[in-house]
Amino acid sequence: MKKDYVDTSDFSKEELLDIAELGILIKRNLKAGFPLNVLYHKSLGMIFEQSSTRTRVSFETAMTQLGGHAQYLAPGQIQLGKHETYYDTAKVLSRLVDILMARVQKHESITNLAKYADIPVINGMSDYNHPTQEMGDLTTMLEHLPEGKRIEDCKVVFVGDATQVCASLMMIVTKMGGHFVHFGPKGFQLNEHFQKIAEENCKVSGGSFLVTDDEDEAIPGADFIYTDVWYGLYEAELSEEERKGIFYPKYQVDMEMMNKAGENAKFMHCLPATRGEEVTDEVMDSDRSIAFDEAENRLTSIRALLVYFMGKRDETIEICKRNLGE
Amino acid sequence: MKKDYVDTSDFSKEELLDIAELGILIKRNLKAGFPLNVLYHKSLGMIFEQSSTRTRVSFETAMTQLGGHAQYLAPGQIQLGKHETYYDTAKVLSRLVDILMARVQKHESITNLAKYADIPVINGMSDYNHPTQEMGDLTTMLEHLPEGKRIEDCKVVFVGDATQVCASLMMIVTKMGGHFVHFGPKGFQLNEHFQKIAEENCKVSGGSFLVTDDEDEAIPGADFIYTDVWYGLYEAELSEEERKGIFYPKYQVDMEMMNKAGENAKFMHCLPATRGEEVTDEVMDSDRSIAFDEAENRLTSIRALLVYFMGKRDETIEICKRNLGE
Amino acid sequence: MKKDYVDTSDFSKEELLDIAELGILIKRNLKAGFPLNVLYHKSLGMIFEQSSTRTRVSFETAMTQLGGHAQYLAPGQIQLGKHETYYDTAKVLSRLVDILMARVQKHESITNLAKYADIPVINGMSDYNHPTQEMGDLTTMLEHLPEGKRIEDCKVVFVGDATQVCASLMMIVTKMGGHFVHFGPKGFQLNEHFQKIAEENCKVSGGSFLVTDDEDEAIPGADFIYTDVWYGLYEAELSEEERKGIFYPKYQVDMEMMNKAGENAKFMHCLPATRGEEVTDEVMDSDRSIAFDEAENRLTSIRALLVYFMGKRDETIEICKRNLGE
Repeated sequence: MKKDYVDTSDFSKEELLDIAELGILIKRNLKAGFPLNVLYHKSLGMIFEQSSTRTRVSFETAMTQLGGHAQYLAPGQIQLGKHETYYDTAKVLSRLVDILMARVQKHESITNLAKYADIPVINGMSDYNHPTQEMGDLTTMLEHLPEGKRIEDCKVVFVGDATQVCASLMMIVTKMGGHFVHFGPKGFQLNEHFQKIAEENCKVSGGSFLVTDDEDEAIPGADFIYTDVWYGLYEAELSEEERKGIFYPKYQVDMEMMNKAGENAKFMHCLPATRGEEVTDEVMDSDRSIAFDEAENRLTSIRALLVYFMGKRDETIEICKRNLGE
Repeated sequence: MKKDYVDTSDFSKEELLDIAELGILIKRNLKAGFPLNVLYHKSLGMIFEQSSTRTRVSFETAMTQLGGHAQYLAPGQIQLGKHETYYDTAKVLSRLVDILMARVQKHESITNLAKYADIPVINGMSDYNHPTQEMGDLTTMLEHLPEGKRIEDCKVVFVGDATQVCASLMMIVTKMGGHFVHFGPKGFQLNEHFQKIAEENCKVSGGSFLVTDDEDEAIPGADFIYTDVWYGLYEAELSEEERKGIFYPKYQVDMEMMNKAGENAKFMHCLPATRGEEVTDEVMDSDRSIAFDEAENRLTSIRALLVYFMGKRDETIEICKRNLGE
Repeated sequence: MKKDYVDTSDFSKEELLDIAELGILIKRNLKAGFPLNVLYHKSLGMIFEQSSTRTRVSFETAMTQLGGHAQYLAPGQIQLGKHETYYDTAKVLSRLVDILMARVQKHESITNLAKYADIPVINGMSDYNHPTQEMGDLTTMLEHLPEGKRIEDCKVVFVGDATQVCASLMMIVTKMGGHFVHFGPKGFQLNEHFQKIAEENCKVSGGSFLVTDDEDEAIPGADFIYTDVWYGLYEAELSEEERKGIFYPKYQVDMEMMNKAGENAKFMHCLPATRGEEVTDEVMDSDRSIAFDEAENRLTSIRALLVYFMGKRDETIEICKRNLGE
């Protein structure tokens, strides 16, 4: 039976950690100069209903590094659910490529593709969630754990608008048993649906979550401060004036906020950043920022997802360990 | 001397069957898990003046599976015969890639490319014909021959508008010596030019053809019922109301029509389908339909065409047979 | 330390000749049928702010032939310096691909990318220069040197509008110590900035340069006559009537001009050509024209640039010489 990666809620903490560790192993193997061909001559179909740089480039580089090839179907080239049914599109593509990823306008597009396709489907972001970002962020936090702490011990604060990246960060942190805070203004906070997911995750994992607009409650003790752009996506975009009125200056991540968190707190951003809005140059350019490591880990984790969902986990671990003499 | 694949009329029945069989052999080799590298490091230039999913993805996957790479030149990126002459475009691309395919607005674009290029050129559909579809459809019919019948014994009925796919189906069926019927309304029937080709093909092959709007004459005894969308392409597109007025309900393929053909008749469609117009859900979703096998055979036959026109037929047959122990 | 290829002024004559010769060696190796994998599984990011055929196809074919893959980021997919800073784009892409090329609207975009990226950056044309064209043209002239002449002995005349290709041809010819002439009408001649570069190049190389609208001074004795389109790029485009008023008939390369140059003079064009404007059919179609060899050498030189800036020069030379038994 093929499996899909549409929502991290479909997976256990152990499975997700397993994928993250697979990614870190493949990364070490490649950095040590050993080529991999575990997806030799395989084709990934990439459907982008919205354009993207990081996600698309990561998938395309990953396929090349694994011996396969990624096909880029740009916005406008396939309209899911328009000229033909999801069912027909999914069935046809299942015959022509080996694995699919899609960045979609509506979450139902990705669930429908996954439902009808006979090959694995990976969600490259929808209006609901961004699970490849989650896996990359998990990887980044694992690589930058504060000394002596496990992921379960970390406090992770998302600052600003409740974007899909905010929701996704909540999902992965509470799944792992960490402590998640959304620090955002009323009206732009994680909604009830997501708070319920957080609650359920925490019941299983022992983690905690908090949604608040109180900085003194939110920030101190944070190990990771994370933010995203203010201009909104998918729905009504905000003008610069509107968004500044809502989020500025309280929700801008500046050095004062980083210091309030603690001297070892790290700064994360899914990028692209609007410097001067949600984050200052000082923070972005400081050694507090691990945003570029985080960008690199999109690639790290996407390689792992491709390998895992193509059923090549065991074989890949064996090859990498042999290469690395472990 | 390089050869091009612009029109199946340029080839004998034996040559076309040879290519179809080459495709089936390569398919068996790949399904058995043996990689092929007969187009190792070769580049296919793909020019699309109109967008496409099946054709583009098939060519791109095929090149990857054969060890090469396909470059996608999207609509608007090259305008054939506009900024530079066909001659110059063909001569330049002949220096930069190894083989070309093009989906063109006007058939003269593909004949001009083929005429001036020093490398093989494959027609990925024009306003006149769709020969890679023909080869895929031939392959599909060969794989689904009714028990005890040869392709020469089959009755193949195209229902609806005289699209390029209709014309192309006629060309391949009459070339093979089969029995072709276009069942369509007056004003939307295969024109004289195509009827003359059918006539000439039948003279050589012993096949037959008929163009009719009489269902009782057209349908009974059909081994394959084939249809295509009603909305027209290239020229004036029809509104939904207009096309329903012309084709509905008489030319909709429903289960009643399938049963009238016979209990073993198969349903084919080049896709995408407008379910509820030219075909009912019931037919599309029944085991009568071989439309997804047909979609997969776009890839099957395109692999064969690439190998054949790159001069790698003999080498490929040898490798596949050795791999398969035959 | 990574190096970039943004402007040939950053390199010595010896370095540029070394790259050209590397390209010719790789070309011989490939024409002899020996595959190369010196960029095995490497990814090139290609950013095109303007569309292109020759440059894009050359880079993509080159990466395939060297064992790697080129990702095409089409116009509109990345807007340099808009949604995020050059710094952030450069840092992110440095984590996700191995080498970058960009065709940019403004020269500062390529210099900024090169400045901030941690990986090599190649200039695929800006509003200022076109250095991959320079390298291809140098290669073409080296392959077509008049008998008994060195590149230092050649007279190279650019006819028509002072496009980036004109400026670039000047830069490479004067760098090599050749004799460069821009034959163009006042108002459309190489500007002071470029004339200063020519002067400095000639001081070092012993070459010469001349900007003139006097045909008798410009043309006789030319070894290579080179032209480009009249319609302008980047800035205000000229209408056909306007450009004909300025350049026609004096600056059209016809057979009379070729004969005035000398019986062995060769014709070059960066293409695409507007036949009947800057060049006649008679010249383009004669054996005087080496324009298609020149187009092929875009690929020749781009392979060399990729290998050189990826730090694979020595290894590649060794492999090619071993393959060729030299």
